[in-house]
This record gives sequence, structure tokens and C-alpha cells, in this order.
Amino acid sequence: MRKQTLLDGIHSPYDVKKLNYVQMEQLCEEIRSNLIETVSQTGGHLASNLGVVEITVALHKVFSSPTDQIMWDVGHQAYTHKLLTGRRDRFNTLRQEGGISGFPKAEESIHDVFLAGHSSTSLSVASGLARAKTLLHEEGHVIAVIGDGSFTNGMVYEAMNNVGRYKDRIIVILNDNEMSISRNVGAFARYLAKIRSKREYFNAKDIIEKGIKLIPGIGNPLYKAAAASKAAIKDMLYNSNLFEVFGFNYLGPINGHDVKSLCEVMQRAKSLNRPVLLHVETQKGKGYPFAEKNPGAFHGVSKFNIETGNSDISPSDSYSTVFGETLTELAKKDDSICAITAAMKYGTGLSSFAATYPQRFFDIGIAEGHGVTFSAGLARNGLKPVFAVYSTFLQRGYDQILHDTAIEQQHVIFAVDRAGIVGEDGETHQGLFDAAYLSTVPNMTVYSPTTYAELRYFTRKALYECKGPVALRYPRGKEPVLPAHTSTEQDYILLDDNKADMLIITYGKEFEHVYQASQMLLNQNCSVALLKLNKINPIEEGCIELALKYNQILFVEEGILQGGIAEHFGLRLQQQGYRGSYHAKAVDGIFVPQATVASSLKKLGLDAEGICKTIFSLRR
Amino acid sequence: MRKQTLLDGIHSPYDVKKLNYVQMEQLCEEIRSNLIETVSQTGGHLASNLGVVEITVALHKVFSSPTDQIMWDVGHQAYTHKLLTGRRDRFNTLRQEGGISGFPKAEESIHDVFLAGHSSTSLSVASGLARAKTLLHEEGHVIAVIGDGSFTNGMVYEAMNNVGRYKDRIIVILNDNEMSISRNVGAFARYLAKIRSKREYFNAKDIIEKGIKLIPGIGNPLYKAAAASKAAIKDMLYNSNLFEVFGFNYLGPINGHDVKSLCEVMQRAKSLNRPVLLHVETQKGKGYPFAEKNPGAFHGVSKFNIETGNSDISPSDSYSTVFGETLTELAKKDDSICAITAAMKYGTGLSSFAATYPQRFFDIGIAEGHGVTFSAGLARNGLKPVFAVYSTFLQRGYDQILHDTAIEQQHVIFAVDRAGIVGEDGETHQGLFDAAYLSTVPNMTVYSPTTYAELRYFTRKALYECKGPVALRYPRGKEPVLPAHTSTEQDYILLDDNKADMLIITYGKEFEHVYQASQMLLNQNCSVALLKLNKINPIEEGCIELALKYNQILFVEEGILQGGIAEHFGLRLQQQGYRGSYHAKAVDGIFVPQATVASSLKKLGLDAEGICKTIFSLRR
Repeated sequence: MRKQTLLDGIHSPYDVKKLNYVQMEQLCEEIRSNLIETVSQTGGHLASNLGVVEITVALHKVFSSPTDQIMWDVGHQAYTHKLLTGRRDRFNTLRQEGGISGFPKAEESIHDVFLAGHSSTSLSVASGLARAKTLLHEEGHVIAVIGDGSFTNGMVYEAMNNVGRYKDRIIVILNDNEMSISRNVGAFARYLAKIRSKREYFNAKDIIEKGIKLIPGIGNPLYKAAAASKAAIKDMLYNSNLFEVFGFNYLGPINGHDVKSLCEVMQRAKSLNRPVLLHVETQKGKGYPFAEKNPGAFHGVSKFNIETGNSDISPSDSYSTVFGETLTELAKKDDSICAITAAMKYGTGLSSFAATYPQRFFDIGIAEGHGVTFSAGLARNGLKPVFAVYSTFLQRGYDQILHDTAIEQQHVIFAVDRAGIVGEDGETHQGLFDAAYLSTVPNMTVYSPTTYAELRYFTRKALYECKGPVALRYPRGKEPVLPAHTSTEQDYILLDDNKADMLIITYGKEFEHVYQASQMLLNQNCSVALLKLNKINPIEEGCIELALKYNQILFVEEGILQGGIAEHFGLRLQQQGYRGSYHAKAVDGIFVPQATVASSLKKLGLDAEGICKTIFSLRR
Repeated sequence: MRKQTLLDGIHSPYDVKKLNYVQMEQLCEEIRSNLIETVSQTGGHLASNLGVVEITVALHKVFSSPTDQIMWDVGHQAYTHKLLTGRRDRFNTLRQEGGISGFPKAEESIHDVFLAGHSSTSLSVASGLARAKTLLHEEGHVIAVIGDGSFTNGMVYEAMNNVGRYKDRIIVILNDNEMSISRNVGAFARYLAKIRSKREYFNAKDIIEKGIKLIPGIGNPLYKAAAASKAAIKDMLYNSNLFEVFGFNYLGPINGHDVKSLCEVMQRAKSLNRPVLLHVETQKGKGYPFAEKNPGAFHGVSKFNIETGNSDISPSDSYSTVFGETLTELAKKDDSICAITAAMKYGTGLSSFAATYPQRFFDIGIAEGHGVTFSAGLARNGLKPVFAVYSTFLQRGYDQILHDTAIEQQHVIFAVDRAGIVGEDGETHQGLFDAAYLSTVPNMTVYSPTTYAELRYFTRKALYECKGPVALRYPRGKEPVLPAHTSTEQDYILLDDNKADMLIITYGKEFEHVYQASQMLLNQNCSVALLKLNKINPIEEGCIELALKYNQILFVEEGILQGGIAEHFGLRLQQQGYRGSYHAKAVDGIFVPQATVASSLKKLGLDAEGICKTIFSLRR
């Protein structure tokens, strides 16, 4: 890392306050090169962080964390904040095991107010924080920094509907870059575009207000009187603005890369001492040409070459891609197939589907609840909706799955991507709950293929041989290398050449490690049978019958133990009067922190070695 | 039931079309008296249904179900719709076992498009239905009838953000009665009030448009040109309206009890062939003085006396009331205690808290996701939030519980009301999933008291002796009559006088039936031990150790089997090497339809008799 004169001198946010505007601009430059260099080594969220450098510097100039509390929506835009709050030295450990989190984390710093990995929580948290400050007579503002993409999720409106009621010191910084991960969609995005295109009109309002306030002596009371009345002036000034409807003072739009303007307008927002929405325009990827040009590709990146912008990893070899290709292929012959995504067109492998069948492709924004129920509506009227969504984000649709797809058995297919350990994103993004929560749902079929071939087969089966809601769950990354005979079009497969005494049951990608373990054991003259489930809910009676024959059974699950498939299987055995030994190895009541997938599995005892160890301990 | 000349002649919606306006008014009268008479016998949702009589009659006059599809938000406002769509004969079976559902149900009629029991799904469903119609080139409009209360939930905005993009034939009827169950709250409610107060202004717009359209020959094209352009006229006409921001044509506000106006404006909405929002003002409880005066009390009612408006059941004897009183009492000495409700102030027993501590009481609207995260924000800054919410509705906060309360262990208390079988509301309202989904959450403590005394004790314990998120779950209705020694302040209690060979484990109100079963068995010289869990997650090690001593164990659970406490307990036994017999009796992978609680429990084998039967079958 090059020497960074100013950044080197920032040990806490207070050091930012000492800088003048010229220095702040230089600091922003230094931060940008630090971000690019670090993320090129560690991977991470680049484009969004490059977009908020000036906002973050200005925030720490104008506000005083931790008395003023800054809540970062989604959280992966907090890198500059981390650099300015005493974590520069460790910033090169970003997203690595034991290192700095890619998200705000209270245990890491008093300046990280609240964890956020999922979208659109910031305003709800902030309203709780601000309400508490008011009730407890504590000082300080609460600031929520939230992208326009997050406004596609309903939680923001639920919060907005409540915030305006109180006069709490809450400032929402709407970071408007016209993107979430893909380009933003929907009415709200159009609305912001309209505001931007009418800059003069809104700036004019701004100037009128400012002008009134600046008249010494009478300015402020006059402004207050005008703002409080329901009369003509207020209507003229505010009436056409959505945010004012919700009770916020609106300021903007402001150039989000002009640190001086930002400081000035933040100062003004602060002085209002009530809910304010500050509309800031930024450019995602700002300052790194490759990211500016292709912010989608630089949203979340692996290691990359700074000079070329190229990353080593070919994203085309993945479950997501195979799923997307399969669906596109099937859609060629079946024009009732629709694909739905919640702002994850690229991540879920649907780019090609979207380009080929734009009429049947729906990017509904970060709106998983709506996505589930909209899909149910499509299904009710005869289409075949496939909602591709990350495991962790589908948690937002749990009620809708139960209420809108399961009771009346709407044939909605959930393509549950990133199921299992996801790695560097850590606690908030692990796909460890879906097998549990989906299997609580009556009438829900869940497949968990291990190989691409199985994924292709069960995608077709889900569409054409199932009724009601069906989930296909598959992990991040690419398929494991496995002998061909372990892949099957059956709901389950038993691998037992030796009439082993012990049976290991598993499903999904975890089969890779179970299989490896069985091979390691073979080398030690210990033979175990393997039962791989492709259908994990409901569990087929045939599996139970097979399992009953073994004296010892171990269920290995890359998912939460409580409510998982291992427990269902265990009870089924008990109800059948099984008297052998039954054990489960899974994620036992904990959240799994950031690390590589391999390291996490090792720590959890879910790699081949760990599984062998468990087996030996059971054999004793 | 008195003879109802016109209603007697309505066998399908087509019969409504034959009526003139005078007859339609008479029909509305007849429907009202039918609704009042029926609901006074069956119980049900009265006030909301009295509010939408004219809307429903007008809908069936102007539109043609099932080609036009009507989606009823929350669904409990569909009684008139049921009367007009061939279900008059069976209407007296409303909400009874085997009878007409209190909600739309596809299996009941081709005119019931989609089930809805939870709020704010209608626009998402409708957008799916309408999109499918367009893609499949099918005729007809899709109409979503939605109360202003439902607009406090974010799903509506998620849907609105998407609907405007397409030109589908979708009409949203905003039934604005200023109420959900309690009086509506928040910015949106204030916004509607503002529109209502500016009736002339909006009506003026209406007339301008109408005027333009009515000029023969040039009218329509001129209107279209104006509507399509982004020029001054459109801005003037529409710019100040929230719904126009989201891409709807706005019509209103209209008197929702004037059937002629309703028909005219619906005709107009229909002719636009694009997304329209029709703002209709209604009065909840219209036509029944007691309900008009106190619509909250007549939202959901038991049997009542038509002449006096009185119902037999004293609502004060309930878990909800005990919870509310306990919290209010504790809040007297601890001013960090806050209460949060999602539009269920009365239902959750919080009226007195709200009146006593208005500053610390938050009715956040029907916004469970926000409720969870807002509570987490309050907790983060030092308050003690208690979010009182029905089990079935908390499903909407599953992700927020995981993401915002559990990972960083915010001390939020969930008072999970209506846990277990709820009775006449049926599938959509049963509280059968909370034990399962809450116990998937790491760091989550769950208590399930049986008696009022236990509820009081564990409320205090949750507030003062626990860390992180804590749920207290308790059922609808009142405590069972049980011997005093079965109530305890311990996390579990073993009742075993006779060194029985068999152990029955249960928790919550189901203990009543288990206890009765044990008494019935005693009379037959069969003795069983009972283990009652007050803390159901995580399960205490001590319970497991106690249970290991019995040769036969039956776990009885008033909740879903898959992922429930019985499965957790079973696996824990297996992991400890238990070799006895273990069985579970719970709700096995089904939704439970409407019936009395007693009848449902009987059918499920969860009443005393059913439990005895299971025990005998295991003993054989």
C-alpha cells in the first residue's frame, strides 16, 4: 500500500473534523485507492463503497459518532466508515476469518451501531434508536444511510409511515445511484429520476427556504411559521414530494461527490432537529473506471487485477448458471414458465433468461414478500412461476410461503440459491435456515440436489411432476467432483457395497464431504453406507425403511440442527420403533461467522476429517 | 331470518346485474340485516363487512366474476360477496366446522379467487393475476379491495412499486374507513385525511378529466394525449398524489355508501384499461348503530344480542389481559419498558398500557417486520421493548428476528399471543408454527406458560433474567382449571407420584388435555408421569436427564410436528443414547381448518380422549 499522508493520520472520527475541504478531498482520493487496493486482494463490495466515500467523510466531519449514531443500510457500504473509525490497520483483513467484517458489527467498534447484511432495515433500526434517545433524553442524531435500491422493499415504507409521527432527530440519507445490484426498477426509481430531472425546481424550493431562513432575526420564525401551517406556502413548497407526505423535511438532490456541499447540507439537516430526508446523488463505482463502467460486476467481487479489472474466477461454472440455463432451455418449449428475481438477476443466473424472455422475466426489486405472493398470483392464473432467490433472503417471505402458496397449494417453484455456508459474507448471509423453515410448511416439497445433472433433472421435475409449492435448494459455487454413480434421478440413493453396519445420511453439497469421509474410512478398513437424499421434504418412507436396517446412523447436515432434516429423520425412525444409535451433526444453535467455506465447514466438523472424527467417536 | 325479497332472488352475481339503482339500494338493506342477524349467531367480522355492502353490490353490477377477478384483502370483508355468489343458503354456517369460511376460499366457489387471512397481500396477488391475464391474452379485470389499514404494511408498497410498470387491467379499491382494527396510525392515514379534507380539489380534477372525455369525438383522444404526455397538464392534475407517483390513475374520493356513484366511477375505472386506484370512503359498522359507534369492538365479535349489542363473553378473562396487566404493572416501576403492537392494541391486551404510558406505547400499524426491527433499535439504545403480536402474524417477522434481534442478541421480548389452535378463523390464523420457527433461531429463548400465574412470572423473567431475544407464547382465551401444584416458576415440572413407566411431555395450554388424560388413565389403573415444559427453547439438560429414566415417552404438542419441540426433544434423547420408545403426537404436516378449538383438538387427537387412545396404542 502506498503511503497515504492524510489517511495515516486518521485514528478516530475526531481526526476528520480537523480537516479543511481541500484536505477532505485529498482524503477521499486516498480512501478510494485504499478501497480499490484492499478489495482487489480480499474481494468484497467495491462499487457501492466507492460511491459513498464523500458521504462518509462528510458525515464524520459534521456529526460526532458514537453520540450521533450512523446506521448503514445493507451494511456493505461501510468500508470508508471502517477506515475512519480506527480500523485502518486491520482493513487488509476485510472479510477474512477473524478479520474485519464486511458489514457493521457492534463487537468490532463502538462506531458500528447495528449489524446489517439484509436490505432496508436501517430506517426501522434508526427509528428505534432515535425514539430511545428522545425518551431517555440522550443527545445526538441518528443517521440512516440507505440506497435507492433499498426503497424497493416494504420495510422502508413501514418505517417511514411511523417515523414522521415523532419529531425525533433522525436523518435519512438517500444514496441515489440508480442501482441496487442491478439497475433499479419500479415506480420509486422513476420517481427519483423525475426529481433529478427537475433539479432546478427542487433547488429553487431549497433556495426559497434557505433565503427565508437567512433573513436575520425574522428568518427562522417565519420559516417555522410557514412550515407549521397547512397553508398555501407549504403546499406549494412540499406538496409534490413523496417524502413530505411521510412527514420528512426533504433536502436535495445534492451532488454526493462534492464534499463541501455535503457538509453544508448535512449541517442544515442537523439544525432542523426533526426527521429529514437528504437526497444525495452518487455514482456507483466512482473513481475506478472499470467499476464506473460496470457497477453490477463490481458490486460484489472476488480478488481482481487492478490494471485490467479482471477477476480469476469464471462465474459461469456455478449452480446458479446451470439453473439459469436449464430454465431458459425449458422456457423455450413452455411459454408458461416465468422467472422472478428480487434484484438478483446476475447472482441467480437469470441474465440470459431475462434477455431471451423479457416478457416473462420479473425483477421485482428487493421485495421478497411481494415476490412470493406475486408468484402465487401468477400460478393461480395458470403460469409457472419460478422465484429464484438466495436462501437467506427468502426468510423474508416465510409468512407468504405459508399463507399464499401452501394453504391453497399454488404451484410456485422456489429456486433457493446460496443454500448452505456462503463464506466471507458471514452471519447475515449464511443459507443455514431454509431446510428448517421450508420443512415446517405443510404441502411443501423440497429438493436438494448435489450435482448439476441433479439440479437440471429436479428443476424439470419441480415444474412438471409436482403440485403446490416446491423448493429446489442449491449452494453457492460449483459442483463437487464426484463419481458419476453417486448422481441420480431418484429421490434418494443408497451407496452400500459392503453391508456396512453404519449409515451416514446427508443431502446437497455436503455429500461431497461425506463421500470423502467414507473414502478416508475405507482406507482405514472401516466401511460405512451412504444415503444421499435428493428430496428432503417430505422424507420418503422408503428412506426410513432403508435406514432401519442399520445399527448406527449419523445424519450430517449443512444447516441448522434445530428444525432441520436430521431431526425430522430422527423422529421418523423413533416413530418406527428404531432402537439403534442415531446421531446428527449439523450447525447447532449458532450463527456462523465469516471465513472461507472450507474453513467454516472444518470448524463446524462438517468437512471430511470432522465427519470421520465424529464417526470414530460414535464407534467407540 | 325475515323474508328478503331481493336477496332471495340472487343466486349468482348475474342476478345483481338485472337490478336498477333503487333495487340495489334495497338489496343493500337486506344484506345488512342478514349480516347482522347471521353474525349475531355465528360470531365473525361484522363492522368491516357492514362497511363494504355497497362496494360489493356495485362490483358485481359493473364487473363479471369470475372473468373479472375480485381479490379481497384480509378476506374477512367478503361476506356480502359470499351472499351474492350462491352461498346464501349456507351463510348461516359461517365460520363453523364444515361450513362457509370467514375468508375467501377457492374450494368454496369459483368466485373466490384467492385465500386471504393475513393483511396486505391483495395487491401482490392481483398483480400476479393481472400479469398472467395479459400474458395469456385472457379477458377481464382484476380488482383488489383493500382497506386503508392494510396500507400500513410494506407489501402494498412493494406491489405498488411494480404494478405501475405494466399497463395491466388492475383496479385497486382503497376502502378508506380510517380504521384497521384500531384507528389507523401514521403518515399514510394523515395523508388520506388530507385528501378527504380537500375533496373539492380532487373532485375538481375529476370533473376536468370527465369534461375533457365527454367532448364527443375529440374528448377521448385529447384526454389520452394529455394523460400520456409528461407535460404541464398531467403534472397539474396528478403531481400531488401519492398513488400517481406509483403509476396509478387516481379516482376519488367517492362516497362508499352511494351505490349509484360507485357504479359510475367503477365503470369509468374499468374503461381506462390500466392500473387505477379508486379511493372510496366508507364507514365501518355502517347501518348497525352499536357497530358504528364502536367499530373496534365489532371488528371481530362472538355471538351477540342484536337489540343490546352485548356479547356474553367477558373478554377480560384471558391470557392477553393478564399479559397486558402484568406489563402495565411492571412498567410502573421501570420506565424503560415499552410496548409495541402491530394494530392489535385491544387483541393483545395493551389498551390499559397504552392509556397509562402513551409515550412508551407504539402502535406501528400492520407492520410486523418493522415492528421487530424497530424493537431491536429500541433495545440497542437501552429500552426494554415488548412486541405483543399474534403467533400467525409474527411469521412476517421471521427474517427480522434472525437478522436484527438474534445475531447481535438484542434484548427484545416477543409476547406471542394466539399461540396454538385459534378456532373459527381457520387455516390462516392458527398459531401452529411459532414453536417451530422460533426454535430455529440461535440465541432465542422461548417460554410457553400454561397458567396465568406462570405467564406473569415468565413475563418478569423474560424482562429481567434473560439476554437476547425472548419469546413468551400463550394461547387465545382463558386459562384451564388445573390443580395448583401443576403451576410452577421452574423451567419445567415433573409430576410422577407412582414411578410410572411412561412419561408424557407437553407444554402450554395443551397440558390441560394431557393432565385430563392422565386422570382418565388413573381411573383405569394406568399411571403415567407428566413432564410440563415452561421453557421450550433451548430445552434444559435437566429435562432430558429426567426423561431418560422412562421406558416409554410420548411428546404431545399443540403445534406443527415438523421442526417442533417434540423433534428437538427426540433428537436430544437419541444423542444421549436413549433406547426406549419415543413418540410424538402433534399437527402432522397439515393446515387446520375452521372449527371450535375443542373440536379441532379432538380431530387432531390432541384432546384428553385422543391422548389416551394414543397411549393405549403405544402400550399394546
